[in-house]
Amino acid sequence: MKIALAQLNYHIGNFEKNTQLIVDNIALAKAEGADIVVFAELAICGYPPRDFLEFDDFISLCEAAAQQIAKHCVGIACILGLPIKNEVLQGKDLYNAAYFMADGAVQKVTKKALLPTYDVFDEYRYFEPNYEFECIDFKGKKIALTICEDLWNINDNPLYVSCPMDELIKQSPDLMINIAASPFNYRHDEDRIRVLSDNAKKYKLPLFYVNQVGAQTEIIFDGGSLMFNEAGELKAEMKYFAEDLQVFDVDEIQNVKTKYPLPERASDISQIHDALILGIQDYFKKSGFTKAVLGLSGGIDSAVVCALACKALGAENVMAVLMPSKYSSDHSVKDALDLVNNFGCKHEIIEIKHAADAFDGMLAEAFSGLPFNLTEENIQARCRGIVVMAVSNKFGYILLNTSNKSECAVGYGTLYGDMCGAIGVIGDVYKTQVFELARYINKDSELIPENTIVKPPSAELRPDQKDSDSLPDYAILDEILFQHIEMKKGSKAIIAQGFDEALVKRVLKMVNIAEFKRYQTPPILRVSPKAFGMGRRMPIVGKYMD
Amino acid sequence: MKIALAQLNYHIGNFEKNTQLIVDNIALAKAEGADIVVFAELAICGYPPRDFLEFDDFISLCEAAAQQIAKHCVGIACILGLPIKNEVLQGKDLYNAAYFMADGAVQKVTKKALLPTYDVFDEYRYFEPNYEFECIDFKGKKIALTICEDLWNINDNPLYVSCPMDELIKQSPDLMINIAASPFNYRHDEDRIRVLSDNAKKYKLPLFYVNQVGAQTEIIFDGGSLMFNEAGELKAEMKYFAEDLQVFDVDEIQNVKTKYPLPERASDISQIHDALILGIQDYFKKSGFTKAVLGLSGGIDSAVVCALACKALGAENVMAVLMPSKYSSDHSVKDALDLVNNFGCKHEIIEIKHAADAFDGMLAEAFSGLPFNLTEENIQARCRGIVVMAVSNKFGYILLNTSNKSECAVGYGTLYGDMCGAIGVIGDVYKTQVFELARYINKDSELIPENTIVKPPSAELRPDQKDSDSLPDYAILDEILFQHIEMKKGSKAIIAQGFDEALVKRVLKMVNIAEFKRYQTPPILRVSPKAFGMGRRMPIVGKYMD
Repeated sequence: MKIALAQLNYHIGNFEKNTQLIVDNIALAKAEGADIVVFAELAICGYPPRDFLEFDDFISLCEAAAQQIAKHCVGIACILGLPIKNEVLQGKDLYNAAYFMADGAVQKVTKKALLPTYDVFDEYRYFEPNYEFECIDFKGKKIALTICEDLWNINDNPLYVSCPMDELIKQSPDLMINIAASPFNYRHDEDRIRVLSDNAKKYKLPLFYVNQVGAQTEIIFDGGSLMFNEAGELKAEMKYFAEDLQVFDVDEIQNVKTKYPLPERASDISQIHDALILGIQDYFKKSGFTKAVLGLSGGIDSAVVCALACKALGAENVMAVLMPSKYSSDHSVKDALDLVNNFGCKHEIIEIKHAADAFDGMLAEAFSGLPFNLTEENIQARCRGIVVMAVSNKFGYILLNTSNKSECAVGYGTLYGDMCGAIGVIGDVYKTQVFELARYINKDSELIPENTIVKPPSAELRPDQKDSDSLPDYAILDEILFQHIEMKKGSKAIIAQGFDEALVKRVLKMVNIAEFKRYQTPPILRVSPKAFGMGRRMPIVGKYMD
Repeated sequence: MKIALAQLNYHIGNFEKNTQLIVDNIALAKAEGADIVVFAELAICGYPPRDFLEFDDFISLCEAAAQQIAKHCVGIACILGLPIKNEVLQGKDLYNAAYFMADGAVQKVTKKALLPTYDVFDEYRYFEPNYEFECIDFKGKKIALTICEDLWNINDNPLYVSCPMDELIKQSPDLMINIAASPFNYRHDEDRIRVLSDNAKKYKLPLFYVNQVGAQTEIIFDGGSLMFNEAGELKAEMKYFAEDLQVFDVDEIQNVKTKYPLPERASDISQIHDALILGIQDYFKKSGFTKAVLGLSGGIDSAVVCALACKALGAENVMAVLMPSKYSSDHSVKDALDLVNNFGCKHEIIEIKHAADAFDGMLAEAFSGLPFNLTEENIQARCRGIVVMAVSNKFGYILLNTSNKSECAVGYGTLYGDMCGAIGVIGDVYKTQVFELARYINKDSELIPENTIVKPPSAELRPDQKDSDSLPDYAILDEILFQHIEMKKGSKAIIAQGFDEALVKRVLKMVNIAEFKRYQTPPILRVSPKAFGMGRRMPIVGKYMD
């Protein structure tokens, strides 16, 4: 029996596009001799559909699309993820399910049992967990079909009290198929391979795993669909950050032929780089936009975002706006222009002095006698926000936000100023990682000016300002932030690791009181195991860690 | 046996304050002769603690506070809600629980079974559901203790497959106690009384219900703790929007004496009014601020917010900034000043012309040959944003956002302009309800100038602009929005109700494409069953309803 794994880029709620994509790939798989083609979890509507699921109409459209697709399942079977109604009165009204379709009709329904409800996942918000398990019989093989999280309950501190494969294995299946929507983070590829390999080993069955690919606003799917033999050895690995379709013969797993050799494990930074590019591309493609604008300061954050945008959208679609203030150093404009020249993107130079002076004048009476402080720094940052938003509004360019994760964490940014934007490109990338990204982008040639990388970071909002005036060294700051944000450690635990007590308390306090700012930041492309945004939900008016 | 119900205003994560409040009320209940005093769900840390729960340290602090409180339970027992560790390896690491404390120690633990995971609730994100049920024996009575949602599974389409009281009733309890953290919306008081009364009737037991009171950022608890006899008759109703403690004799329920007679059901608008005032007060009190700033346009939205702020914080703590542009009508400034005079709050008049002209000049070259359009309107709105944020930054005033729900819904507002603010006061109040609120505020005297109420709404960002140029009449718009947002109906269902097809499709499209704007709005005080914010989670890059 030949199984095709179809790793595709869906668009949430775009039934027309998703249906066409699925139908095209059924034809492709059939042409390649597949007996069955497997699509991802919730393929029909894209993942995560979030509260669209609460609209009856949306569920009906999913069902209608599935029925249309079923008609194409002639001479080939298909496994397809979709939300379906729970016809039992008790419990949530929906299941996260998969249809097994053959001979032009739905033959069997499989429902998801383990519903991830943590980090960016909200599945129990919508779905009833499944408690009934049955394998699929097809062409003399018994298939144990599970949906994503259903295979993830094997570790030392399992999140669920039950384990679906422990039930399915009682029916003596011949193979496992898992359909997933498993988002990228730079650690996830290794976790995924380990967990799936453990499943193959535990149940002594070959395992075929299909993931989605593509970005849905902040959530990025990296693809990387996988195939393991019954010893848990990885036999095939599909493309990362791109669509792919591969056909495998279940009876020839030991001699499997893949389109590509198994790739070497990519470095975290190269994965982050590729993820961000896909994230930018899909944000634009799926929103129907082509052109981006950003403020280019000469500093490293905006330089890296500009570079990524040029790679993702084409330099001709990127407008860099240089907005020097009276506190900008000469080299800032030069460094920014060098970058523009290296990439060949468009640029404008618009000085913000006139607007900043106008505000100072307008506020002179109200502020009379009060010294220059953060207020005036913020006014400059906000004048820049108005300028880039004006360019965005006038020309229909989408504003890219250039704040990094370290800044977002400690609130070192101006709300409605440099925190403006439709999508945060590097908001999940710590400052120390931004430097790594710059080096990675420059690996073949100096695209980002060396001076941008080596000069001390500065917001240039007052004379001779340096980030290090207000913040600890990024190397230390980022370590503390990682312990607190990714590792969820409180001050005591971090201090116990040897960090300075006063510093740890200061940093955690900054993180906590910046919650009101983060609430209003753009969605941030998620590349880490714990990104700001929907995956990290903190009280604003809360006192813990104050 | 005498039961004290303690309806208190907790502060999330403020263990010092919450512990003191609880200890004080144990003493108070004891002084009033109570045998047991009952506090709300998660009283110890406030509700909702959100991802604070993921920090081990936070859970330890909850436990430490509970142990401290237990020492005060001498000569009186206490029921207290808190998160506790799940010592079983399988399943989530926490339970939403309650301690029964007596004789200076924890005597029994009750765990929540039904975990609300919808709208603003995320409980399955953190907690393992409970499957074991046991009554509490105390002074010869058997108490069936449940936690909030545990009593809410009795309707025609139950959300859960199990029902905790169906288990507890098997142990023949003498009474029911339910501890809750049940947030306000203008429909919830009636739902709550009905559901709790149904429980008392179904199980033929008296029911004592304790809710929290107070606001936690956007979530407002209205209190209104309740007592029912075994026939399901409401025998006592505690204060709304205020702390309260009352003692009831379980053996004298038919002749219950309450501190107050049962109040008449308050109108939706009066409830919304009181909720918003509490919401403003607690946002400031719990954040440690006292003074507010807002932009006052002469229109009804900012007038109502100014009025609410003056009532909540005292007029002396409210700064209204009038920011006329060249398109502002003469009456706008007069109407705004009339309001300022009526309330006696502070004000500044800062014209935005200079800044707007400066931007026009700075952008002249980049925009040369292009006509005035939304870009220039947005620049004016954003200049106002900069001015009020500068006043906020300079004086430490908190900016109140004045956008209403109709605007938020259709995206009729400028991101980083009039959408700025720390907290959205009327972002869950439709425009037609804003008019009702104005009339309610004016019920005794004309505080909000009549002209502000009767003139046609306008953003005044270009000559002779009216909201009705871009939007349908608010009466119709709000009905369509209500059907879509609160009732979760798609276009087909709304059109089937008799609304114009083209209009419905246009409105729903506006709602959908404004998602990116709403993502960046301030938290909005929640007063309806479906508010924008954490309770409504929509994809941004999604195509459904486009």
